[in-house]
Amino acid sequence: MSELRQDPTTREWVIVAPERAKRPQPKVRKSTSGLPSWDASCPFCPGNESQTPDEVFRIPISSAGSAWAVRVVPNRFAALALNGDITRREEGHLFRKMDGIGAHEVIIESPPHNTPMALMAYQQVEKVLIAYQQRYNTLKKNRQFKFITIFKNHGWTSGTSLAHPHSQLVATPIITPYYHRRFDVAHDYYSDIGSCLYCDLLAAELQEEKRVVVGTKEFVVLQPYASRVPYETWVIPRMHAASFGLLRAEHIAELATVLKDTLFCLYQELDDPAFNLMVDTSTTVDEEDPYYHWHIRIVPRRTTIAGFELGSGIYITTHLPEETAMVLRERYYSFLKEGKVSRTPKA
Amino acid sequence: MSELRQDPTTREWVIVAPERAKRPQPKVRKSTSGLPSWDASCPFCPGNESQTPDEVFRIPISSAGSAWAVRVVPNRFAALALNGDITRREEGHLFRKMDGIGAHEVIIESPPHNTPMALMAYQQVEKVLIAYQQRYNTLKKNRQFKFITIFKNHGWTSGTSLAHPHSQLVATPIITPYYHRRFDVAHDYYSDIGSCLYCDLLAAELQEEKRVVVGTKEFVVLQPYASRVPYETWVIPRMHAASFGLLRAEHIAELATVLKDTLFCLYQELDDPAFNLMVDTSTTVDEEDPYYHWHIRIVPRRTTIAGFELGSGIYITTHLPEETAMVLRERYYSFLKEGKVSRTPKA
Repeated sequence: MSELRQDPTTREWVIVAPERAKRPQPKVRKSTSGLPSWDASCPFCPGNESQTPDEVFRIPISSAGSAWAVRVVPNRFAALALNGDITRREEGHLFRKMDGIGAHEVIIESPPHNTPMALMAYQQVEKVLIAYQQRYNTLKKNRQFKFITIFKNHGWTSGTSLAHPHSQLVATPIITPYYHRRFDVAHDYYSDIGSCLYCDLLAAELQEEKRVVVGTKEFVVLQPYASRVPYETWVIPRMHAASFGLLRAEHIAELATVLKDTLFCLYQELDDPAFNLMVDTSTTVDEEDPYYHWHIRIVPRRTTIAGFELGSGIYITTHLPEETAMVLRERYYSFLKEGKVSRTPKA
Repeated sequence: MSELRQDPTTREWVIVAPERAKRPQPKVRKSTSGLPSWDASCPFCPGNESQTPDEVFRIPISSAGSAWAVRVVPNRFAALALNGDITRREEGHLFRKMDGIGAHEVIIESPPHNTPMALMAYQQVEKVLIAYQQRYNTLKKNRQFKFITIFKNHGWTSGTSLAHPHSQLVATPIITPYYHRRFDVAHDYYSDIGSCLYCDLLAAELQEEKRVVVGTKEFVVLQPYASRVPYETWVIPRMHAASFGLLRAEHIAELATVLKDTLFCLYQELDDPAFNLMVDTSTTVDEEDPYYHWHIRIVPRRTTIAGFELGSGIYITTHLPEETAMVLRERYYSFLKEGKVSRTPKA
């Protein structure tokens, strides 16, 4: 018997149908194996810097040399441009549009062409997170940008068009309906109960334990109650904070360790899966609100979003998060014995 | 300069960014070419009927023989089951679930393994639509089923797992949040303006003409103002009607012609693209409401839904619907001269 579960953060329902795991599946291609460490035709590889638009940010490998560890550049095929008219224009009373203003940047995560984040050094992941935050905090000063989405597509079925490890950032002049819904649910909860929905969810998850993969001093890795795909995994800070932009510098190193170890466990368990990673954060104007609670969402892409999902908005998943969290937790602790993941201090 | 357009039916924004059409694209695989007309290992091919669960509906080729033209069977890997407890259960005050009750059926569209709907005879498409409606109207009698989604995944990147032409139907005990949003927008419009949003949209589209592909006596084929992907195409009835279930029998043949011709033009223009097709209809309990207006939505899947879409809910598309509608319209009229599509009477 399958079950329907309601996502407490969106009130959307998900169908959990283990029977469907048995249906025929197309072969899954590994995401990064077989790639060279340097590719002459890759615009993100060292030596090809002239193929990207001018850098907006860089972290050097050392203070001395000119080599970079992380670069941020505007997306050459940007969906949005910095200049334009933010005025909304009506075409008749039914159609509304505005210029596509915003920012669309690429965070080039490391010089090597073939090292996914799951296999990077902790210090390299930390630099990537510093770049995320630095760009977020710079762009939020432009008050036209109401919402900044940081995300990463890894592997072909995730929608990426380039193999070199990279993330993206999109700043938009609109707050998205998707965020609106999440925010409304959190706001209603706060009105009813007087506390942050996500803080309460986290407390419930830590008490039940069964969907928790690992907890560190500042972060918890868990798989949500109504996960939309098998192995959907969240990294959520223990302390209430609406915005990733305000994450304290001293916690970024710990986040890098937790994130890298989580991706490493997924990499090993699912054989280098394609995935999307999203930083779910507040709007730029509500960074200190008491309702929302930022977190990182990792969504493996082993199945395709199909007509039922597009038509109904309901996801069908084939695995219970209790089971996949147990698998990932066992992976983590066996890797810990082998010294392949870190024991970060637990609160 | 890209632009942001608001979908008048959902109030969601879409980014139209033609620049991004130039970025590197993975090779697109044709959806059906190279397939045999019969496949011994396909559970949907004639002769393999015993490999599916027992038929719930069939349209025979003729009243005499036992051969079938269309079969409907329960999905062997069903996401939902007919029996179970519809009671919602709380796990603490945060987690809510219910048994996965519902129906999940497969409409096997024709005996040949390799004839996509775009290349079928009109009469065959009509039989498929009759099967859609017959199953919809049978299942809606079960008052536990609040919403019935009919959809079709064509081609591997659409999420299908079997090549043989088929559609699916899922009946759920919940009304989906996606539909809720569409319904709320239509309801608000009705409260404000006193007419059906979709009727007014259709009138505006027919007046502007530029996003209309073709109009027939009862239906209009158009590409929506804020289409989420290039070549998103709607088939919408001219007359107000909330539910596909109430489409009059005498209009089904015309719909089959319009739908087949539309799919044929897309097939030729985009080289047998993968696509999802969804019948967007009212809930089963509001089939005669004055707000909603059923239609068929065809969403070509030439790009992947990626992290930005999943994270923000905003789609980035690379083509203006005015341009792609013109391309498809020109295709249609040139095929009309060649006798490859039908001139259905225009109102």
